[in-house]
Amino acid sequence: MAEKSKILIIGGTGYIGKFIVEASAKEGHPTFALVRESTLSNPVKGKIIDNFKILGVHLLFGDLYDHESLVKAIKQVDVVISTIGQQLEDQVKIIAAIKEAGNVKRFLPSEFGTDSELNTAVEPAKSILYKPKVQIRRAIEAEGIPYTYVTSNGFAGYFLPSLSISSPEVTSPPRDKVVIFGDGNPKVIFNHETDIGTYTIKTVDDPRTLNKTLFIRPPKNTYSYNEIVALWEKMIGKTLEKTYVPGEQLLKQIQESPFPISILLAICHSIFVNGDITNFDIGPSIGFEASELYPDVKYTTLEEGLRRFV
Amino acid sequence: MAEKSKILIIGGTGYIGKFIVEASAKEGHPTFALVRESTLSNPVKGKIIDNFKILGVHLLFGDLYDHESLVKAIKQVDVVISTIGQQLEDQVKIIAAIKEAGNVKRFLPSEFGTDSELNTAVEPAKSILYKPKVQIRRAIEAEGIPYTYVTSNGFAGYFLPSLSISSPEVTSPPRDKVVIFGDGNPKVIFNHETDIGTYTIKTVDDPRTLNKTLFIRPPKNTYSYNEIVALWEKMIGKTLEKTYVPGEQLLKQIQESPFPISILLAICHSIFVNGDITNFDIGPSIGFEASELYPDVKYTTLEEGLRRFV
Repeated sequence: MAEKSKILIIGGTGYIGKFIVEASAKEGHPTFALVRESTLSNPVKGKIIDNFKILGVHLLFGDLYDHESLVKAIKQVDVVISTIGQQLEDQVKIIAAIKEAGNVKRFLPSEFGTDSELNTAVEPAKSILYKPKVQIRRAIEAEGIPYTYVTSNGFAGYFLPSLSISSPEVTSPPRDKVVIFGDGNPKVIFNHETDIGTYTIKTVDDPRTLNKTLFIRPPKNTYSYNEIVALWEKMIGKTLEKTYVPGEQLLKQIQESPFPISILLAICHSIFVNGDITNFDIGPSIGFEASELYPDVKYTTLEEGLRRFV
Repeated sequence: MAEKSKILIIGGTGYIGKFIVEASAKEGHPTFALVRESTLSNPVKGKIIDNFKILGVHLLFGDLYDHESLVKAIKQVDVVISTIGQQLEDQVKIIAAIKEAGNVKRFLPSEFGTDSELNTAVEPAKSILYKPKVQIRRAIEAEGIPYTYVTSNGFAGYFLPSLSISSPEVTSPPRDKVVIFGDGNPKVIFNHETDIGTYTIKTVDDPRTLNKTLFIRPPKNTYSYNEIVALWEKMIGKTLEKTYVPGEQLLKQIQESPFPISILLAICHSIFVNGDITNFDIGPSIGFEASELYPDVKYTTLEEGLRRFV
């Protein structure tokens, strides 16, 4: 086996970034995180960085908007993973730095959600979330930078506590009533963030996913919303009162909601009504499914994740 | 009295835009809305535009990103109001078109929320919502364009149905339990969207608000979250179970939530924990309070709005 590649994560203290940093360090990759010096004094992010230090992660001080610091960081590694959550179009700055550094064997831009090209999301999600990701894909390809796109699909650790993508203050799934967008039948996929980290790191040195997409679509995490609710009902031995919000009504809500709630609802429409996570086949021309490529990874299933709340 | 100025609204079919278009037409201003031809076939926006036609609004086909169409539209009016909801930094395109047209007597950029300068919001709200608005303010001032900034504060029609800014699917305030960010004591302000429209239009020809901010802070809409809940409890004759989320915990939730929920929570932190809507005085050097300037406007009070749900 070749030596494990050195990995730089940009956006490592962010929502999904910290799981990827952790997976990289645990898989034995020399791991580097680009952080701002000012982040150290942030009470929440400071703790995340303390954990990075315990894991042996090398902190590199710098900033996406400081070209010199970016080039200097990139020159020390083989693989660059971006997990920035906003202003995704500014990843052109990473592309420019990778070009200048000239040593990068693989770049994983910030995707980590529904596939940015294979979805039918309406505005404002289309322009704010997906269009910039697609533009970055095209820019990477135009520059001839080796890449892998990771379509991680939903975040189970975020979704399961409320069975909703808009209720972060809720810490246990509903026991009386539930709101279901659409008819609840399209299949959706929610993966545990730790597994998203593991699959992402597994793929960086894998020649099969070079210039392809890694789709994280394990069979035991693939359920319709109705099936998830039925599973939960069985676990708690209780039937929930269900309110269905038809797709047309949801479209109206999207238009009538201020930003950023409008984006959240547009994501709900895309995945729960249109079924954008699963309504296409993964052919070898576009990429591969993660649990098939890496059958040794024992991922946490949706059922196991849900059972923790019983 | 001078003839009423002609008003162009850019973003008129958006959340707050439609109320401003409506107010402009109802107040007797020749009213123009810049819309894309493709918007006419959108089932939801098409209906909004049908209503514009009934009100006698002139539709101008064009696009923020089509400079010629923008200049052509602006040349037909005296006042430009931008109510775009996203990609706020792109309002530099409006500034450029106003400069070229050379005839604009007042420009109201898209603000319509918490004051973009007088707030202490944390990331990601700071960078995504407020920084671009402040940049646009500076660009307007640098170009010497006459302006008024409208700090509308919260949207009552959006907030009151759930007593929350993250639950658009809820249509009636809670009758069993409620989540309160912080200690519930800072004063917040939620104004009805129709009144925001009326006050905005009242101010466009008012010399007092030239190059100043109009703060919509009517006394009967100024309550702490605890007071709003107490008012609701009194109306329904029932005491709610209250869960308080301390500020530190909310900061942690912000960091641990994916975009765009992180923005919503950061707005909650700014207004409910830090009290950013009311924690400054309005002096004549920065601007004026709307209900004081326009005492003839009979605004819908928060109590009246809440009573509709009893």
